[in-house]
Amino acid sequence: MAAREADAEGASGDRGRVTITEIARQAGVSVPTVSRVVNGRSDVSPRTRARVEDLLLRHGYRKRPAAPGTRAALLDLVFNDLDSPWAVEIIRGVEEVAHAAGVGTVVSAIHGRSGDAREWMRNLRARASDGVILVTSALEPVLHEELRALGVPLVVVDPAGSPALDVPTIGAANWSGGMAATEHLLSLGHRRIGLIAGPPRLLCSRARLDGYRAALEGAGVEPDESLVVPGDFRPDSGFAACTTLLDLPEPPTAVFAASDQMALGAIEALRRRDLRVPEDMSVIGFDDLPEVRWSAPPLTTVRQPLADMGKLAVRTVLRLARGEQPDSPRVELGTELVVRASTAPPAAA
Amino acid sequence: MAAREADAEGASGDRGRVTITEIARQAGVSVPTVSRVVNGRSDVSPRTRARVEDLLLRHGYRKRPAAPGTRAALLDLVFNDLDSPWAVEIIRGVEEVAHAAGVGTVVSAIHGRSGDAREWMRNLRARASDGVILVTSALEPVLHEELRALGVPLVVVDPAGSPALDVPTIGAANWSGGMAATEHLLSLGHRRIGLIAGPPRLLCSRARLDGYRAALEGAGVEPDESLVVPGDFRPDSGFAACTTLLDLPEPPTAVFAASDQMALGAIEALRRRDLRVPEDMSVIGFDDLPEVRWSAPPLTTVRQPLADMGKLAVRTVLRLARGEQPDSPRVELGTELVVRASTAPPAAA
Repeated sequence: MAAREADAEGASGDRGRVTITEIARQAGVSVPTVSRVVNGRSDVSPRTRARVEDLLLRHGYRKRPAAPGTRAALLDLVFNDLDSPWAVEIIRGVEEVAHAAGVGTVVSAIHGRSGDAREWMRNLRARASDGVILVTSALEPVLHEELRALGVPLVVVDPAGSPALDVPTIGAANWSGGMAATEHLLSLGHRRIGLIAGPPRLLCSRARLDGYRAALEGAGVEPDESLVVPGDFRPDSGFAACTTLLDLPEPPTAVFAASDQMALGAIEALRRRDLRVPEDMSVIGFDDLPEVRWSAPPLTTVRQPLADMGKLAVRTVLRLARGEQPDSPRVELGTELVVRASTAPPAAA
Repeated sequence: MAAREADAEGASGDRGRVTITEIARQAGVSVPTVSRVVNGRSDVSPRTRARVEDLLLRHGYRKRPAAPGTRAALLDLVFNDLDSPWAVEIIRGVEEVAHAAGVGTVVSAIHGRSGDAREWMRNLRARASDGVILVTSALEPVLHEELRALGVPLVVVDPAGSPALDVPTIGAANWSGGMAATEHLLSLGHRRIGLIAGPPRLLCSRARLDGYRAALEGAGVEPDESLVVPGDFRPDSGFAACTTLLDLPEPPTAVFAASDQMALGAIEALRRRDLRVPEDMSVIGFDDLPEVRWSAPPLTTVRQPLADMGKLAVRTVLRLARGEQPDSPRVELGTELVVRASTAPPAAA
């Protein structure tokens, strides 16, 4: 409830004092029509909706919050897709802290589709959410502007790119994690270490790749670019990338997959060729999803504190909703090497 | 929005016409105090809260919904725990249909703890949710009564026990699925088939066990109760149960695990003893979680349509919110055998 009340009296709403009547006059439509747009209803023509939304945005109109205490607070947790066990870890952390604060967690997926994102924004405005946590997804600039105009606090978890500095981000120590994974393989005696990298457009992929390179350099191992194969974090891409690595004239003796799911795909590619993990090839992942404790063999990986990232995101967005500033706009939580059974010294060593 | 509007005019609120003033009079407290209880605020003494909640419940008081169209509709999706990749499949289905209907999905976990469930109920009441989808969890009877008194529609997904007949349930065809898994192993030539069963208190465990027995009987195989070992659906229990089966004087040649996660635990137990899947032992799971396509080897399993169960739950709860009845109070969606690489004829055959 704290968030809701702070919200009603907070500084964030100062811009939002233009009335619906004024918007209606400027748009040349009736007040009920503006009201329908504000409330996200569908019975308005697209052209009228566009004109009214434009005016709402320009004036930074924010719906007057319900009277304090008339309903529970809500926050919006937005994913691109809900198709990975990764998501449930973040939801678990967010729900735990939000629940304790009496705040409900509204979970949405926008599928990277503009239409879904706009529909979500309409619903967000209608439910007057207290804050938004965006997970690894980029909103179009116009929606970012709209959020800003509405005065709804925003926190980005695992940022895809670099959001504006006034948007706090919470990530993991991806560079250090990439370095720790590679150093673990080096310490076992591996010198030819393959990397199945993440999508290059994501910051976290770049950081893990740089950590891998830094560890190789630190050990005096000459980097070999043929050992770096891109993936998209999904198992299929790990399978394909590992196959590429195995087809090299001189394959690696160990593979660092920049996600657990790609590591599982790589293990399957090895199994199909009757190669054993870790006897014939070591595999290390990144994430520590709950199920990789039970992969065959149990996966050595770098733990990313997904639930903790979710928890911190809620605390940060509730602080913003109270008009306070976060301690730092950019937070990275530590990653941790978890050694299980998928890594061992190279066979030739 | 449809749900919200139906809700404002619907039949479900007819009982809820006692006023806060009347409740305050009967409880001997002020109107603002009753209001604080209704709105789930924490600044009320436990004793006062209990007295007021009791009166609210007895009178079937329901907070007057916000005026139609003043905010988006919400529904509550409640899990016991958010600790399994299983949950994200259901969330995905629920979110998809709810989003398309302009309804926000509030996700909560009550951890089977009475305090969390009460706190959730308080928040639910405060946000005047349009409906509740409860996943494999049992509310205490008093909370069930309270939901009923509030007139909030309820649908149970994957029921743990048998809820009252006026609560629609959506499950999977667990009996047929258990039979299909066992018949698959029989058709490969297995005769000694172990079952790692689910928790006996859950209906779905019982149905899968009965399906297993029916298939054995249909094939004229004498049941051997030493081959049935209980688990709790988690990987650790599958590991332990498989170890028990391997220690039998005459171990099975194939194992049916009543959840994918227990199947993964069983595969790990086999790997630890240098037994290969499927050459030395066949393993079949139940669920078809996305990641078992990438287990080593890829898991043969029975697909449970978790996302579809979530979708149907939303459609049902929105129908109830509009004052309509579901087609049937008990729905089971079909399960489907998915043959991958973890099952093969027995070595001795």
